[in-house]
Amino acid sequence: MSDVRIDDLPVRDELRGKSPYGAPQLDVPVRLNTNENPYPLPEPLVERIAERVRDVARDLNRYPDRDAVELRTQLAQYLTDTSGHEVGPANVWAANGSNEVIQQLLQTFGGPGRTAIGFEPSYSMHALIARGTGTGWISGPRGEDFTIDLAAAEQAIAEHKPDVVFVTTPNNPTGNAVPRETVLALYEAAQAAKPSMVVVDEAYIEFSHGDSLLPLLDGRPHLVISRTMSKAFGAAGLRLGYLAAHPAVVDAVQLVRLPYHLSAVTQATALAALEHTGTLLGYVEQLKAERDRLVAELRAIGYEVVESDANFVQFGRFDGEGGAHAAWRKILDRGVLVRDNGIPGWLRVSAGTPEENDAFLDAVRELKKEQST
Amino acid sequence: MSDVRIDDLPVRDELRGKSPYGAPQLDVPVRLNTNENPYPLPEPLVERIAERVRDVARDLNRYPDRDAVELRTQLAQYLTDTSGHEVGPANVWAANGSNEVIQQLLQTFGGPGRTAIGFEPSYSMHALIARGTGTGWISGPRGEDFTIDLAAAEQAIAEHKPDVVFVTTPNNPTGNAVPRETVLALYEAAQAAKPSMVVVDEAYIEFSHGDSLLPLLDGRPHLVISRTMSKAFGAAGLRLGYLAAHPAVVDAVQLVRLPYHLSAVTQATALAALEHTGTLLGYVEQLKAERDRLVAELRAIGYEVVESDANFVQFGRFDGEGGAHAAWRKILDRGVLVRDNGIPGWLRVSAGTPEENDAFLDAVRELKKEQST
Repeated sequence: MSDVRIDDLPVRDELRGKSPYGAPQLDVPVRLNTNENPYPLPEPLVERIAERVRDVARDLNRYPDRDAVELRTQLAQYLTDTSGHEVGPANVWAANGSNEVIQQLLQTFGGPGRTAIGFEPSYSMHALIARGTGTGWISGPRGEDFTIDLAAAEQAIAEHKPDVVFVTTPNNPTGNAVPRETVLALYEAAQAAKPSMVVVDEAYIEFSHGDSLLPLLDGRPHLVISRTMSKAFGAAGLRLGYLAAHPAVVDAVQLVRLPYHLSAVTQATALAALEHTGTLLGYVEQLKAERDRLVAELRAIGYEVVESDANFVQFGRFDGEGGAHAAWRKILDRGVLVRDNGIPGWLRVSAGTPEENDAFLDAVRELKKEQST
Repeated sequence: MSDVRIDDLPVRDELRGKSPYGAPQLDVPVRLNTNENPYPLPEPLVERIAERVRDVARDLNRYPDRDAVELRTQLAQYLTDTSGHEVGPANVWAANGSNEVIQQLLQTFGGPGRTAIGFEPSYSMHALIARGTGTGWISGPRGEDFTIDLAAAEQAIAEHKPDVVFVTTPNNPTGNAVPRETVLALYEAAQAAKPSMVVVDEAYIEFSHGDSLLPLLDGRPHLVISRTMSKAFGAAGLRLGYLAAHPAVVDAVQLVRLPYHLSAVTQATALAALEHTGTLLGYVEQLKAERDRLVAELRAIGYEVVESDANFVQFGRFDGEGGAHAAWRKILDRGVLVRDNGIPGWLRVSAGTPEENDAFLDAVRELKKEQST
């Protein structure tokens, strides 16, 4: 029986020959490949998590609060405090990572017989979750400089009439933010074409030079802003994603959410982290400074760099077929793991601690010398 | 904008007019409606959870182990220890509740253009998750006495050629187990018809008078056994479901699982609970005795009761249209919340602590008197 493989099972046709998504999890001194926050949670927060989890563990035999009301209230407060735009618990929904938020949105507004568009290269999970939910995927255009060419994007929307439009800002893996006016124009184009839902993925917004698009929710019931605690809150291990939208959207995703999808320990841990928002946003400021340093130094070394509003930087170019992957390997040989997203000529590096960034800069400086000789 | 409702949004047609799934979460002295384990986790386990979560919180800025190897290893050990059938980590997969396990299975083996069958009444989430994944749902037959009529079930499988067959044993909400020979025959019928995957939902197996069907996995790569820590482990708040199957099945679901779906705190909490298996299975023995007492006393009072291998009991009959719901309300008026699953004439009660069960028995004794006069 050991010779039975995936393709011997009655799996769906579109899964045949596929491999699971995910960056290599390698044991390397400096890991700058998955846009993790390099700063461990402060010890008082670690203790507070243990305390809050201990409390809920005493009721762990009971199902968790299915509607996560306390958590949604605190997330709404955080959004209100940081954006100046009033957000209430009825506007907020939370799930196991923003991936699950996106999956629920596609189950509600996408799915079989429907389509979604993203402007690629962008966060590759949008396309993969579309596939997983039976939603047709349309790869929309992006300019040579990785900005969204508005005319081309509007034309794609008018032509394909997608049910869901993804706009990632700051964009992953390129790092650049999408201007507010562009998002507004895309929303209008999407309404004219269908109307369709527009999901603005703000996973990295806390690192941006600009502001969140939360205020745009006013009067736009087909707009959704998705967020995560993985990056700014330094809690990738927690898997807590959330969205802000019109209350009707929050009601709608509850038609497809798995009941009790969010565990009591997840809710407790997220609530503890939200108590420490001030400290965690302090780390964000340090990371923004380090990100700006990476951009400046990479340019000084002679690399091309995409303007970044995220906690990572896309840099290049590495010419020739497989040039980027060869460079990725050489940087890895120097003990630094960055990300090859398969974009010809480019690699992505996450902003780490100052020491980690120094190690990375040393590695790419050597690489540049090597390539020049 | 406050007048925008779900149906004003571009939701999928099949979601229009629907309500979210879930039992009422009412604040009542005795809650015997969701098959929760009434025993809180023992204090040493609560402390161990706090300790293990504190440890992982120190690395919470990093993504969790995407493949949950330590957890799958310990779950495999538990299955091996309790079934006598050797199960390894390659046979095991875990997710946020057995609901997510089932969702992943349907995304892999069901989905658009495919169908799944269950023999109803059974666990209603099977049909709901089918809907959520675009899988066509076939409501298979069950006998008047709530057993599976093998000939009728085989005929339904031959006729509909479903891609996925669900067999819930012990069945929820009726409580009765499905005989091993019936499951074997259904597996054969499913292979002859398609071949299709057979998912045996053993959420309540630890409460059964009989054995797990895990040994049937040998030589049957299209068989999946799904399990949960919600019931026997007293950890409904944890949301930890898992499956055992051929390693190729475990590989296949990784094509649709959201990357890093299982948080570090969930993995840590589950691992702590698995360290305390002995104590928790002791509570299971108490609950089995209480379940048997409920069956005997309900019969002595004059109710009809379905033979139960679970931690709950289906009892009736309440005649007349809405008879069961009227009885549900009267029991609730006496401070005891049971479950109305919409099966005409029947209600379901979860086995609670001896005191909770006494309160329930008092309530239904009074109800019987009232109905006799």
